[in-house]
Amino acid sequence: MKGAVLYGPYDVRFEERADPAIVEPTDAIIRLSASCICGSDLWPYRGANPVKKPSPMGHEYCGIVEEVGRDVRTVKKGQFVIGSFFASDNSCPHCRHGYQTSCMQKTPVVGAQAPWLRVPLADGTLVATRDVPPASLIPNLLAVSDVLGTGWFAADAANVTKGSTVAVVGDGAVGLLAILSAKCMGAERIIAMSRHEARQRLAREYGATDVVTERGEEGAARIKELTKGVGADSVLECVGTQESMWQAIHATRPGGYVSYVGVPHGVQLDGAKLFYTHVHLHGGPAPVRRYLPDLIELVLDGTIEPGKVFDLTLPLDQVAEGYKAMDERRAIKTLLTT
Amino acid sequence: MKGAVLYGPYDVRFEERADPAIVEPTDAIIRLSASCICGSDLWPYRGANPVKKPSPMGHEYCGIVEEVGRDVRTVKKGQFVIGSFFASDNSCPHCRHGYQTSCMQKTPVVGAQAPWLRVPLADGTLVATRDVPPASLIPNLLAVSDVLGTGWFAADAANVTKGSTVAVVGDGAVGLLAILSAKCMGAERIIAMSRHEARQRLAREYGATDVVTERGEEGAARIKELTKGVGADSVLECVGTQESMWQAIHATRPGGYVSYVGVPHGVQLDGAKLFYTHVHLHGGPAPVRRYLPDLIELVLDGTIEPGKVFDLTLPLDQVAEGYKAMDERRAIKTLLTT
Repeated sequence: MKGAVLYGPYDVRFEERADPAIVEPTDAIIRLSASCICGSDLWPYRGANPVKKPSPMGHEYCGIVEEVGRDVRTVKKGQFVIGSFFASDNSCPHCRHGYQTSCMQKTPVVGAQAPWLRVPLADGTLVATRDVPPASLIPNLLAVSDVLGTGWFAADAANVTKGSTVAVVGDGAVGLLAILSAKCMGAERIIAMSRHEARQRLAREYGATDVVTERGEEGAARIKELTKGVGADSVLECVGTQESMWQAIHATRPGGYVSYVGVPHGVQLDGAKLFYTHVHLHGGPAPVRRYLPDLIELVLDGTIEPGKVFDLTLPLDQVAEGYKAMDERRAIKTLLTT
Repeated sequence: MKGAVLYGPYDVRFEERADPAIVEPTDAIIRLSASCICGSDLWPYRGANPVKKPSPMGHEYCGIVEEVGRDVRTVKKGQFVIGSFFASDNSCPHCRHGYQTSCMQKTPVVGAQAPWLRVPLADGTLVATRDVPPASLIPNLLAVSDVLGTGWFAADAANVTKGSTVAVVGDGAVGLLAILSAKCMGAERIIAMSRHEARQRLAREYGATDVVTERGEEGAARIKELTKGVGADSVLECVGTQESMWQAIHATRPGGYVSYVGVPHGVQLDGAKLFYTHVHLHGGPAPVRRYLPDLIELVLDGTIEPGKVFDLTLPLDQVAEGYKAMDERRAIKTLLTT
């Protein structure tokens, strides 16, 4: 088969790779219904993370089970399944606490920008739907696999509840779906921080009540102003830079909650400064597996349409253009048809 | 009157200071029943915080109201009161959320190592008991003012609940009372990290089930070992150094809770490292005012004896020796009779 491989900064190639095969008896092979490019793929694409060897790309996926290893019990050939970007056994103590991305057996799932994918620990990782869903729902279901799950974790980790005042730092696909998540959790006021018109529109469609264009300390000051000097109850940091992190912390009221879900790049937190802000801080790789069953339901019953973040659809062989469009912010998120 | 004044590193003097007087109509003047020295007083005493000018010391207090300003409504002359180290109005949005140490009107209370003390914002800051308590209860009630309130916040901020596995980093008075607090909140297992025999004894008396003498990464590894490789649900960081902070973070299970209540000195948190630990982090200056009513009750009804942390009692004029004994770890905490 052919799939996406990153060779170095700005160098994604669509090229021949070995067909995935069962390696462990707990593996499954999936025929992907669609694939996509993640905001986090842009870090190595832009050279922020070094690429030591040619790397198969992609970790968001849904599709039809083609084959399972002999120890797989809960999914079977022909079923439609969705999984998360880390394979997990869903039974170790960390998984039982809901932190499947810290599973004691966790294994990254890689190479999903391709027609087929090997998923380790299939029983713990994959969630099957009752029926094979219609093609029209594929973008929404694919989004559940990472970007919605991550936005949902951002809202959950920042303790968003009914009536909360929420601010979201970052207008990428995760930030936009964090807004949708906060709305679903009953937030009363949702302040989107964005300078990009198309993204502001989707933010409002997903539930944002205000838009703030200022950034950094100015952005934080604007949030304080909008909340009568108090600060937001919950601020969802969906970027991962030093500026965005402090913007989030300083926009939060004392005793409020800051979540962070993008891998921090160059972020240093001064302990004493953080101390006096009195915020709660929680984040990490989103344990999407925890939320999969509920989020799949919300998509299937039509409550949410997270797939709207895909504003560019390309055939898989044009994956390089998909990266370029996201890097240049011409696209929020690229769907790849397989 | 005479009180304690810090002039520079290791230079505490007992000398004449102006008698406190009502400055604002919301002030109260208290005749102190006793005073004491805080672990945080050792930072400037040791030169870790610069002393720019001679500074009246002490911020833990309880005593009898001598005089109140004309706007004070809830406490009156002759009542026994306890307050916190930050004066707060107890009515602003931050106070209503329970973060009185971030009160929009907050003012530090200073100079409590003396016979009399001015307390600003008396209505918001002070809690009066129904009767004047017997002298035997004074050490327990004085401890509520800061050191117990801070230990209690450490346990609360780290989400200690019935059945929790808890570790406490730091065997100072705050750490020891964090153990007592965790016990009160129903923790099943409480691991004290201490190398000091007398402190280990009090830790066990207060509810510690295990003692770990290793520190830093070794200490964290030992906690992991004791918890079957999982880590503690809640780790209470009661020191404030880089080593103790990472010891706490690495001793916590993914999804677990780290609280930190000592002012961090030289603590830098790498965002990416923190991200992958998956911990919740919360701390800051303990909002003792939030807990005062309940903690006073627990002392008055004999449930807890936080005053056991005072293992040295000196008359106020020997305050310098009180500092010295704590600095040299000969005393856990010094009570000063006024």
